[in-house]
Amino acid sequence: MDVDLVKALANDKRLQILEWLRDPASHFPPQREGDLVRDGVCSLFIAEKLGVSQPTCGEHLKVLAKAGLIRGRKIKQWVFYRRDEDRIAAVKELLSSDW
Amino acid sequence: MDVDLVKALANDKRLQILEWLRDPASHFPPQREGDLVRDGVCSLFIAEKLGVSQPTCGEHLKVLAKAGLIRGRKIKQWVFYRRDEDRIAAVKELLSSDW
Repeated sequence: MDVDLVKALANDKRLQILEWLRDPASHFPPQREGDLVRDGVCSLFIAEKLGVSQPTCGEHLKVLAKAGLIRGRKIKQWVFYRRDEDRIAAVKELLSSDW
Repeated sequence: MDVDLVKALANDKRLQILEWLRDPASHFPPQREGDLVRDGVCSLFIAEKLGVSQPTCGEHLKVLAKAGLIRGRKIKQWVFYRRDEDRIAAVKELLSSDW
């Protein structure tokens, strides 16, 4: 089992972000820039809803992105994040494999 | 997803212990007290093989046991640990479920 991958998931804030991004339209209002589903959710809104500072949220997003669980897309000066469902499916497979 | 459960797995030493206990006879010599497979592996041998102090190893074993992944059995003054395969199967199911 990949310990870095497990570490990426071993945090309640990061699990919360993943849950929200699973169905962004149910958790975030429409954005002026960037479609919630197609482009993802602006990191500023994620930080606000999470109740943490932008740098703290940025660290969580970085960990999730490094593990390949989410992808960021820059639009203008903002970064929008959405889940990488293919990668998440592969990770679930890995987590349920032999260990 | 249960964050405490994921945290229990998010450590390379603990993953190593789980891997060894999966096939204890391949990783530990026969014990004078306690059958490796039936009773489990003595915590002293796990600490030695892991290359950490007994208290450090004890902490890791405690975390794994609290998560239900291993079970301890006291024989004389020693504690022997083995995997709880039923619980591990249930955990794999959980890790691959919706998140």
